[in-house]
Amino acid sequence: MDKHNYNKVTSITFEQLQAIVGSDFISADHEQLEKYGQDETEDFVFLADVVVKPQTTAQVAAVAKVCSDNRIALTTRGAGTGLSGGALPIMGGVLLSMEKFNKIIAIDERNLQATVEPGVINYIFQEEVKKLGLFYPPDPASWGSCSLGGNIAHSSGGPKAVKYGTTRDYVLNLEVVLPSGEIIWTGANTLKYSTAYNLTHLMVGSEGTLGIVTKIVFKLIPLPKTDLLMLVPFKSAEDACKAVGDVFRQGITPSAMEFMERDAIDWSIKYSGEVNFVIRPEWQALLLIEVDGNNAEVLMADCEIIGNVMQQNNCDEILFADSAEQKNALWKIRRKVGEAVKSNSVYKEEDTVVPRAELPKLLKGVKEIGTRYGFKSVCYGHAGDGNLHVNIIKGELSDEVWENDLPKGITEIFELCKALGGTISGEHGIGLVQKNYLPIVFPPHQLELMRGIKRVFDPQGILNPGKIF
Amino acid sequence: MDKHNYNKVTSITFEQLQAIVGSDFISADHEQLEKYGQDETEDFVFLADVVVKPQTTAQVAAVAKVCSDNRIALTTRGAGTGLSGGALPIMGGVLLSMEKFNKIIAIDERNLQATVEPGVINYIFQEEVKKLGLFYPPDPASWGSCSLGGNIAHSSGGPKAVKYGTTRDYVLNLEVVLPSGEIIWTGANTLKYSTAYNLTHLMVGSEGTLGIVTKIVFKLIPLPKTDLLMLVPFKSAEDACKAVGDVFRQGITPSAMEFMERDAIDWSIKYSGEVNFVIRPEWQALLLIEVDGNNAEVLMADCEIIGNVMQQNNCDEILFADSAEQKNALWKIRRKVGEAVKSNSVYKEEDTVVPRAELPKLLKGVKEIGTRYGFKSVCYGHAGDGNLHVNIIKGELSDEVWENDLPKGITEIFELCKALGGTISGEHGIGLVQKNYLPIVFPPHQLELMRGIKRVFDPQGILNPGKIF
Repeated sequence: MDKHNYNKVTSITFEQLQAIVGSDFISADHEQLEKYGQDETEDFVFLADVVVKPQTTAQVAAVAKVCSDNRIALTTRGAGTGLSGGALPIMGGVLLSMEKFNKIIAIDERNLQATVEPGVINYIFQEEVKKLGLFYPPDPASWGSCSLGGNIAHSSGGPKAVKYGTTRDYVLNLEVVLPSGEIIWTGANTLKYSTAYNLTHLMVGSEGTLGIVTKIVFKLIPLPKTDLLMLVPFKSAEDACKAVGDVFRQGITPSAMEFMERDAIDWSIKYSGEVNFVIRPEWQALLLIEVDGNNAEVLMADCEIIGNVMQQNNCDEILFADSAEQKNALWKIRRKVGEAVKSNSVYKEEDTVVPRAELPKLLKGVKEIGTRYGFKSVCYGHAGDGNLHVNIIKGELSDEVWENDLPKGITEIFELCKALGGTISGEHGIGLVQKNYLPIVFPPHQLELMRGIKRVFDPQGILNPGKIF
Repeated sequence: MDKHNYNKVTSITFEQLQAIVGSDFISADHEQLEKYGQDETEDFVFLADVVVKPQTTAQVAAVAKVCSDNRIALTTRGAGTGLSGGALPIMGGVLLSMEKFNKIIAIDERNLQATVEPGVINYIFQEEVKKLGLFYPPDPASWGSCSLGGNIAHSSGGPKAVKYGTTRDYVLNLEVVLPSGEIIWTGANTLKYSTAYNLTHLMVGSEGTLGIVTKIVFKLIPLPKTDLLMLVPFKSAEDACKAVGDVFRQGITPSAMEFMERDAIDWSIKYSGEVNFVIRPEWQALLLIEVDGNNAEVLMADCEIIGNVMQQNNCDEILFADSAEQKNALWKIRRKVGEAVKSNSVYKEEDTVVPRAELPKLLKGVKEIGTRYGFKSVCYGHAGDGNLHVNIIKGELSDEVWENDLPKGITEIFELCKALGGTISGEHGIGLVQKNYLPIVFPPHQLELMRGIKRVFDPQGILNPGKIF
């Protein structure tokens, strides 16, 4: 499947598209194409022929039909914060930006549900439901700028996933435009569902390759009344990883359990320019642990138990965040790691995930593989989920090593993930940059099943072509 | 699609199957065929040509291949407790009983996971993990006899689903035999997953029509240390339904929130022969509410809040279960309602589900529709999930009304579910008995998408034919 399989947008199809969305919402200017031709994945830029910004489901359906009728590649884009290149229009054609789908249509307090458009920014949605004492937990590091539709494309997680699950766990029902222009609702607005194949769950994580999400019904939960945050330093990164698994065996499920290697912390603090505590030279890793609930005393008791587990795993002195400011500062350091690494060097980010207790083995393996292939990695992520972001740093590596040898090293990392019961992406998706590694985890007949599903939804292969497979 | 599309098991294919599973694990005796030709759905009996009981995944794969090669219908059966006829071999052929797949292969305390075979009985699995302080929450009323594989077929729920989710929420990874005899693992043993299409979630709820589950990796959680149970009587069933929605707005998520109409209670108590409390004549409905957690004081405080909500909704005097025996007795009454209704009359059970706060409207609508069509219904179920089991009683209705008019009444009930944002099955599945109603909730192009998925997995349509569609 390459670019020759698709037709370019001609002046005729441009006019058709313009008639659908209106002349203010279509552009073929180079500057616009460049802006919409990149996301947060490495330094890729791919130019579509045209950017369109529909405002209604009917317009999306009409755009899809024009693309179907003319065999034009159609790539849907949320806020462009993806880390696997999922929104890059690599086959040209139409880039469909969902940014005008930015309305919170209804927050249903009686049923603890919300109906939203996919272009709503995660953080804005969270804040709106909070005002009503409700909670939408999924909180990717990019929550301030990522869209809910993009979150659905990859079933995004975030720190709170360890207790509350990922985007998938909050999606009840989706309005979806099929490539044919037909519209479906995937399921029902119910907490339980056993009514034929679960198209909702098939759509979540399908990275815009099966349909275009135009409305979302989310489940909400009551907002926990309080939380406590602790920062736990370790002289050994492996001790930190081991401590993670031990906490859960005490019957406690923290609302966040984040891991940062020394370099990740240093780089993030330097990047964000805020240090309000001393990182001692001997610390090799930190755990950022949050517990939440409705009862402060219960949380204090949980923290005491967690503290004991940490000490049994040789932690250094534990710091409790004693104000909202301190909590925000700690969270900011964690959230900015990705950007900090990106600003520091050319890099590749791998989204490894394994069963939680295998994390020490994964971390050790990543470092060993790095030593063999000569690359440095900065590791951090959602340790409570076994989801370790491995940022491989180009640094002084030659372009040749980076292009030719590194993929072998990454292959070994992913083979290790699989051997440990894990897989190659926990929350970033396959998109463009991981698709060559997919055969590590799936045999050919399984990939063929997935391609078969793709063909059922999108017989011409116009939707987000060149992704996943 | 009817029986003529399939070949019967001949003496040649019988011998092939016998060579695969061994002569002790295959039978074509009428008595056996009859035993395996029914489940808990009404009074249906359908005879397969042969019952086979494989003991290994390789045997399942070989059986599937024989059926594929010879175009023989292949229906997988768990423990036969289904309520939608999903396990009935309506096209004859091979009935594949998974009863020999009854091993708990591993309980991984480090990762809070378990690997099990699908024939393991739900209750046995729950008890085994409890011994280790772990918890597998899904608890259908049939938990003492239903199999975990059957639970996956329909994403079974149960009382605890309101807090802990259904079977779907605990399935991490599945070993699946495809009709071709090929074997796949659908995903990874991880809490997070964003690695191409989610075949795990597609398989859950697919009622044995896409593949045969041979191993399951479940997520487990820490076992809550304690619980409290209260029984709340109401003079008005609608008040009871309204109280349900109000509880969640107080920020409390009970671990069970069960609703029983007067008749359901009376019939169940009569059936199980155990009454240790007086059901006052003026009570029209009961709520059975459980809260669980690690801190008894917190639970007491929650119960106080719940009690206030109940009183605001005009409940009568609340009964707290003050011993394990009393808790068991109350739960037994709830769990036995289905059997009690069944023993009392010919009936049809509908598994309606709506957003929680729409429950009063649903209940009122069901009664109105019943009045118009002349049928009586006994309603009970998982009110916290908006999942109301509507048992329609034949009683004195003529066979003609039962066969010809009742489906129109059921259609109206399902149309009401859809209008309220709900659907036609929350946890029982579509199987055989609801398939004619599926077009109420899905337009033709959506059903065609689902049929397309079916064809990708099962091009010949041999797996559980005649179900869902």
